[in-house]
Amino acid sequence: LLNDIAEKVTKSTGITCYVRSILNVLEALTKTNNIWELVAISHEPFICVIEILKELEKRKLVSITNVISLTNRGREILSTYMYCKKDYRCDKCSGRGILFNLLPEDVIKEYMKIVMNRPRPIQEFDQGFVTEDTALSRIAIMDQYGDVRGRDIFIIGDDDLISVALGLTNWPKKIVVLEIDERLVSYISKISNEYGLNIEILKRDASEPLPNYLVSKFDTFFTDPPEPLEAIKLFVGRGIMALRKEKSAGYISLTLIDSSIDKWREIQKMFLTQFNVVITDIIRDFNRYQNWDYITDMKIWKLLPVKQKPESIWYTSSLFRIEVLKNSKGFNERMKQDIYSDRENISR
Amino acid sequence: LLNDIAEKVTKSTGITCYVRSILNVLEALTKTNNIWELVAISHEPFICVIEILKELEKRKLVSITNVISLTNRGREILSTYMYCKKDYRCDKCSGRGILFNLLPEDVIKEYMKIVMNRPRPIQEFDQGFVTEDTALSRIAIMDQYGDVRGRDIFIIGDDDLISVALGLTNWPKKIVVLEIDERLVSYISKISNEYGLNIEILKRDASEPLPNYLVSKFDTFFTDPPEPLEAIKLFVGRGIMALRKEKSAGYISLTLIDSSIDKWREIQKMFLTQFNVVITDIIRDFNRYQNWDYITDMKIWKLLPVKQKPESIWYTSSLFRIEVLKNSKGFNERMKQDIYSDRENISR
Repeated sequence: LLNDIAEKVTKSTGITCYVRSILNVLEALTKTNNIWELVAISHEPFICVIEILKELEKRKLVSITNVISLTNRGREILSTYMYCKKDYRCDKCSGRGILFNLLPEDVIKEYMKIVMNRPRPIQEFDQGFVTEDTALSRIAIMDQYGDVRGRDIFIIGDDDLISVALGLTNWPKKIVVLEIDERLVSYISKISNEYGLNIEILKRDASEPLPNYLVSKFDTFFTDPPEPLEAIKLFVGRGIMALRKEKSAGYISLTLIDSSIDKWREIQKMFLTQFNVVITDIIRDFNRYQNWDYITDMKIWKLLPVKQKPESIWYTSSLFRIEVLKNSKGFNERMKQDIYSDRENISR
Repeated sequence: LLNDIAEKVTKSTGITCYVRSILNVLEALTKTNNIWELVAISHEPFICVIEILKELEKRKLVSITNVISLTNRGREILSTYMYCKKDYRCDKCSGRGILFNLLPEDVIKEYMKIVMNRPRPIQEFDQGFVTEDTALSRIAIMDQYGDVRGRDIFIIGDDDLISVALGLTNWPKKIVVLEIDERLVSYISKISNEYGLNIEILKRDASEPLPNYLVSKFDTFFTDPPEPLEAIKLFVGRGIMALRKEKSAGYISLTLIDSSIDKWREIQKMFLTQFNVVITDIIRDFNRYQNWDYITDMKIWKLLPVKQKPESIWYTSSLFRIEVLKNSKGFNERMKQDIYSDRENISR
């Protein structure tokens, strides 16, 4: 039965769906009736979750009204698989393993204040910013690895205002931001001037090759890219180009919502073989995102079985850390295609 | 100067040493004067740390007496690099992100009791077991991912007594252990009988191919392998062979003490290209190991600049989780060579 559903979903979405994917959805339904939470808990691609639900409904394993719930039959099937998870996440660090509140108090306070007037996320650039906790946790983990103090840091796309948080610490030697969105460019410039943060912000499209003066000049890069494979190649490839070639580090966020686990495999292959870098950390659900305004304009909205906006945080991603080693290489060709959409993308 | 040292160390050890590796050692020396802690904090391969110290001493950046310390010159050099890290690890979960004490109380209590009489680690099989906290944290994270309840679990080498901890929960459908050490085989059998844990334990050398009745029969595997590349290939290859081919999961421990970051890259390439699996998590320092008796018989002991036994826990490893996907494949050939030693190995 589940095999049959997996095949159907694979065919209709073009994304490989596994029996275990369906079990992940069924199991999540024992914990929530809300579509957004369902995606969050199951850790399956949104597009697949929707198709899985359709197939489950057809077979009367799930009922969809204004809520989504397991039928008795669904419950029975799940229990034959004895598939069940328990949450052990640490409540002190939200499962991240690090405590951002060990950062200097004034950094935390100022950052919280500054973000209150930031530009709202827009769909044009696939924006959506992380919670303040997340942004600060990123600074903490980077500092834990020696990737902040005295370092030259490069940020590709900064709707999260990571540059501002970094600047407030006063630890980096240099902070350079590549940003395409005029609104963010002026906001970050304004804040940088006001607080004396010394952030260099360049209004640039990442698909243009990096100019020479940015190549091999940094110790650390950070990016939270759009997730089509080509976009990852572009953002991470540029990041690696910007790094000095000696155990410099890159931080990358990657979801299991806009990306299937099969795409993760392709991405990791690209990291290991094309870029020849090593992955030092993958921390699940490190990044939590605030809800954004354009959710009803997204591709996913039209597909939703229950049209209901999310009421709490549901969109999360893993934090990858990579290191550049001997013979690593980046990517600096011009890229022309649309980098914002693929079949797994929920936005467009 | 540091470039010169890096080259020298690379030449003498055959392991790529980076300027950043030396900085990691110098930085660690601002925090400890103890060789074991130095290795732990720097996260550089032990063999390299020793050679780096030698070169630093020659250049009077470090003084080695009965303790190891930075000279003023060493401090100056480090400060020109402004290289500095801070520890943000969560004290509630020891940086693991999960709380093992959410496991049933009696599981924790019984496990703590049982391990008190376990066989001591021996060098012949490169043994060294993890702390009770670590073993229980492994169960917790596996359960968080749905890899325990109702699952068939395969363990390759079990001096950590993971099978016992799993058995005590009563959650898995089946637990099978492959173990080469007669002492562990009988200890685990005895405990399993005494507590009715239903652990199937096979006295077998992993270098023998897996018999058919173990191939494609499990949902989860666990291994904490010796770290030469061929050993990883053997242990992880066997684990993957044992798994059903549908988003089943493998857990693997890997140090940066017995393995350089360059070896990590080779290992990850093997995972991605030869095995065609995906890495879902890499959690730094998840595993902490108790000190073992044969430390003075190890290769590393003869090389130590200060002959002093470790007084607290220093040996740690990262926890990898991988998933088997469509077209993943394992490794089931017989392997004849010595799997316990390579140039990075500290034991022999």
